[in-house]
Amino acid sequence: MFDFFCEIRDDLSYVEAELKRVVGEFDGVLGEAATHLCNAGGKRLRPAFALLSGHFGRYELEKVAPLAVAVELIHMATLVHDDVVDGAAVRRGRPTVQRLWGNRVAIRAGDTIFAKAIELVAGYPEPVVSRKLAATCMRVCTGEFAQAEACFNPRQTLRGYFWRIRSKTAYLIAAAAELGAVVCGAPRFISRELGRYGLAVGMAFQVVDDVLDIVADERVLGKATGGDIREGIATLPVIYVLRRSKKYHRRLLEILCAREKSDAEIKEAITIIQEEGGVAYSLEVARRFVRRAQEALRILPDIPTRDKLGAIAEFVVARQF
Amino acid sequence: MFDFFCEIRDDLSYVEAELKRVVGEFDGVLGEAATHLCNAGGKRLRPAFALLSGHFGRYELEKVAPLAVAVELIHMATLVHDDVVDGAAVRRGRPTVQRLWGNRVAIRAGDTIFAKAIELVAGYPEPVVSRKLAATCMRVCTGEFAQAEACFNPRQTLRGYFWRIRSKTAYLIAAAAELGAVVCGAPRFISRELGRYGLAVGMAFQVVDDVLDIVADERVLGKATGGDIREGIATLPVIYVLRRSKKYHRRLLEILCAREKSDAEIKEAITIIQEEGGVAYSLEVARRFVRRAQEALRILPDIPTRDKLGAIAEFVVARQF
Repeated sequence: MFDFFCEIRDDLSYVEAELKRVVGEFDGVLGEAATHLCNAGGKRLRPAFALLSGHFGRYELEKVAPLAVAVELIHMATLVHDDVVDGAAVRRGRPTVQRLWGNRVAIRAGDTIFAKAIELVAGYPEPVVSRKLAATCMRVCTGEFAQAEACFNPRQTLRGYFWRIRSKTAYLIAAAAELGAVVCGAPRFISRELGRYGLAVGMAFQVVDDVLDIVADERVLGKATGGDIREGIATLPVIYVLRRSKKYHRRLLEILCAREKSDAEIKEAITIIQEEGGVAYSLEVARRFVRRAQEALRILPDIPTRDKLGAIAEFVVARQF
Repeated sequence: MFDFFCEIRDDLSYVEAELKRVVGEFDGVLGEAATHLCNAGGKRLRPAFALLSGHFGRYELEKVAPLAVAVELIHMATLVHDDVVDGAAVRRGRPTVQRLWGNRVAIRAGDTIFAKAIELVAGYPEPVVSRKLAATCMRVCTGEFAQAEACFNPRQTLRGYFWRIRSKTAYLIAAAAELGAVVCGAPRFISRELGRYGLAVGMAFQVVDDVLDIVADERVLGKATGGDIREGIATLPVIYVLRRSKKYHRRLLEILCAREKSDAEIKEAITIIQEEGGVAYSLEVARRFVRRAQEALRILPDIPTRDKLGAIAEFVVARQF
């Protein structure tokens, strides 16, 4: 996805091959379902962060690869269970596992993928790797859960929003960035800063994702905009307008919390959010997270990878998809 | 459950309290659901094996307790996902999590409980603990999955049956028995034999469970007999009769593979299985597993716990519930 990854392109290809090999070993239809998930692609952002962070220690692909595979597997496992919970039929333009094989396969595939990820990292001599990833998984579950709970709910707070995106997105990216350095033997102060960097980039990434759900070019995004509004999910742009706009507060809330809504109403909500500054504010917040990420980098040794990480952080806000 | 556990009664109570404390810390409704699961009880067989095995090393409750809690959590996580997959409304005489809170909560609760288990054992200095438990979880998932795949399927083999019950039941009991000794620093040859003991006891336990599903006193069992036949699951007594009885092969298969069946048909199948020797054969197989368990014990140091384990193995076959 990112050209910034040229440094690690071959290693990412190796991780991709490993990912396919690992899930290909699952029995029968579980293997087919997991392979389908793998082939559906994705940005492989988490493995990339793990690999890049490894360069702050004594980088060896064999050391960092199991971690890189594991973080992507964890991400995949949460996606497949999300799709069951949401009853989603399509993800990344392809039919979901639960659409193709049903809930039964989707639930077991998610469990198996998750168990495989844990098995992969249990081989590391540093117990912090398993512990941190397990704790991160718990946060991802509770975050996804809290988001579902907050749907169609008129009581929304910024604090609740930030807690949710930290849990469901940022922690896993932070864990990838931190642990990549840990498994390559980087000193503690370095891995900790990389974790901070990852957390901030993860937050920026999710805020921008939520903005793109409102303003992206649908052809580039690969799906219709306004999906979150349709599902009653209040993201940052919405929460901002709900809090700031006296004029449109009631109308936006009405559309957000309606279980059924027309395309025209979603379009209306999008217009309100843009005109009332929800998008501009959210992008400003995302830039603030990017600054926080850059600050964490400043403390790190001045190696070329550091500049890459800085450029990736900037790109997260500039991206169109 | 077992009087054999008197030696570890206080320690089991501590594990029980820890179990409740750990799931009580989950957020909101996830905590409620997990607590409901905990309160539904269960035999706590897996924690008991972990504690007993610990006595073959330098036993310390604090050392073995996280493992004992973790193996029970893993068991609980698989149960809650099983109930989603099966659409089960009742377990152990109480409404299931998915019945009370829906699929969404049940899936997330299972994921969170599983992640918590992994987090608990990631603290052990022996990497084999996390690795073995993760591998066991994968086997449990594939075993449960294979069982569901085999439902209503006329092609049944003994080999398939033994593979399924080893995966879905015996491996986790074996892991509890083996790792209890590992975390208390017992030598490798001891923990390995305890693992063999656990595997054999686990196999016997599941075979007897499957027999009781056919012949138990319903008041003692707490549910109607013939549940497996109703769900199209071919257990050992059924597979035996299908292979041995020329007279009843066709009729038993017909009842087993019918999606809808009357109580009278299930009763008929039960009579066939009993009269054609399916129950007697299965109990003989269970006894064979018990002998295998006893053989594994013979190699172990002659401490009182060894006799307890021997008695538990005998009881597994003698039990009525």
